[in-house]
Amino acid sequence: MDSIAIFSPGSVANVCCGFDVLGFCLDPIGDRMIVRQSKTPGIRISDVKGFKVPLNPKKNVASVAAEALLKDYPSKFGYEIEIDKTIKPGSGLGSSASSASGAVFAINELMGSPLDRKQLIQYALAGERLASGAKHADNLAPVLLGGFTLVRCLESMDVLPLPTPNELVASIVHPKIELKTSYARAILKKEVFLQDAVHQWANVGAFVSALYTNDYDLISRSLEDIIIEPNRSMLIPEYDALKSSALESGALGFGISGSGPSVFALSQGTKTAKKVVQSMSDILAPLDLAFDTYVSNINQKGIQII
Amino acid sequence: MDSIAIFSPGSVANVCCGFDVLGFCLDPIGDRMIVRQSKTPGIRISDVKGFKVPLNPKKNVASVAAEALLKDYPSKFGYEIEIDKTIKPGSGLGSSASSASGAVFAINELMGSPLDRKQLIQYALAGERLASGAKHADNLAPVLLGGFTLVRCLESMDVLPLPTPNELVASIVHPKIELKTSYARAILKKEVFLQDAVHQWANVGAFVSALYTNDYDLISRSLEDIIIEPNRSMLIPEYDALKSSALESGALGFGISGSGPSVFALSQGTKTAKKVVQSMSDILAPLDLAFDTYVSNINQKGIQII
Repeated sequence: MDSIAIFSPGSVANVCCGFDVLGFCLDPIGDRMIVRQSKTPGIRISDVKGFKVPLNPKKNVASVAAEALLKDYPSKFGYEIEIDKTIKPGSGLGSSASSASGAVFAINELMGSPLDRKQLIQYALAGERLASGAKHADNLAPVLLGGFTLVRCLESMDVLPLPTPNELVASIVHPKIELKTSYARAILKKEVFLQDAVHQWANVGAFVSALYTNDYDLISRSLEDIIIEPNRSMLIPEYDALKSSALESGALGFGISGSGPSVFALSQGTKTAKKVVQSMSDILAPLDLAFDTYVSNINQKGIQII
Repeated sequence: MDSIAIFSPGSVANVCCGFDVLGFCLDPIGDRMIVRQSKTPGIRISDVKGFKVPLNPKKNVASVAAEALLKDYPSKFGYEIEIDKTIKPGSGLGSSASSASGAVFAINELMGSPLDRKQLIQYALAGERLASGAKHADNLAPVLLGGFTLVRCLESMDVLPLPTPNELVASIVHPKIELKTSYARAILKKEVFLQDAVHQWANVGAFVSALYTNDYDLISRSLEDIIIEPNRSMLIPEYDALKSSALESGALGFGISGSGPSVFALSQGTKTAKKVVQSMSDILAPLDLAFDTYVSNINQKGIQII
């Protein structure tokens, strides 16, 4: 095998209560990538379609992640990466995680899979850091492992796959405004009230329990964010109205996808998820603002060879 | 039925990462209580054996909890509570929760069980507040429900039973020093670093996941407390030495039980738990300090009629 084509999906990080630790993988949204083995050593971005990302391998998250992998697993070959980028960078839908994970996944396959999917996360991190200025794996983990994931500890790369209740469906709205992850991170307060942190970790524990027990009511009660949402929601147009309309249309919960500007809702069943996405569209339609909407099952497989 | 005898067990609250939300129920330690229905209305503490607690019903956590129950569920009868108190108040082993839960459990039984165990928590809370000056249910929930519990939200009384891996055994050491819950609470910082809170809620999520998957290694990795332990451990004699000896003897994790001074370790299997408790005894034995030790299975039943 000297070339491989993959689908590397988008993802939703944070998931309300789980800032920097929880994430889940999306289905319809994702980048297609082709990686070709080459006799010329080094990593090159051979082509970019769709959204524009750098061709300079020092500035592209895919090649930076690939370089990190090759540093530990040297190869006599080089690799040429072609990206069909359908996830807009800065959308909050895990655009950089998709490219970074995709690159290391594809090259690992071409090298005969010396690493498993979990081990690839640490290499994809190098790309993620380039994009956001901070190391975080809450998008990378679901892209590589599929389903819901929890990053227990980034330093020790302790990442857990979590179960996915079958009927959970995500509704996504991506308002096309520019919002840098680094800025969305910079506005967060460095300190939080202990009592708020306690409330948040109670919700994290309850949400994890709900995933194991398929308890949709508990999923709904625990999808709450009293720490990050109050700071970041003001960056997103019509946030409160979107949230109200989603919940009134039957969503179990609603929050910012990653650091925004995309927002997501989780619902029980596709019918409700479609109603929810329609209600959110109705809020944004009258505004002078482009936006995309998606209804997505939770992708339990993660990156796939196509 | 006009009288009832119960065993109301001790409990461990906080459980390292889960300050104010996690708890589990103990087996060998607990108060015995006899509650008798009387034709004279009102609540009386008829007798106290073992550790001394107030006979004045306005100052005893059992009667205060019972009064809260009778306010919502009036009875033409009165109730006389006899307490054989074997859990020392202020030990960190859920002494007040045992008495408060026991009283409402027993009276509810005598009234024909209008409420289930979960519904009783809110009434037991009145007693807990008298003891500690703050409302918290992380001891009450395991005493009433058994096993591990998570208090998602105190205001809405959203309390979850969690599964208990079969081989988990607790080792407890209770150094007999005076340590008021209200003081141990007062020394906590009101604000914490966001990055520490994130680390803590990742551990809470991971610990809950580990309980569902019987993953003892993950239980061990997630039994970590970077927020409360640094403040409170200094109140406990030889804390660092106790922790080191417990972990070196094979404990999965170690922490302060409730607000202390008792400490607990969790181990896989009774053999290890006994070794752990012995190693902790060896640390305290040379000191001029009385202490008790216990090895306890996780009590999955909670309060029982005897």
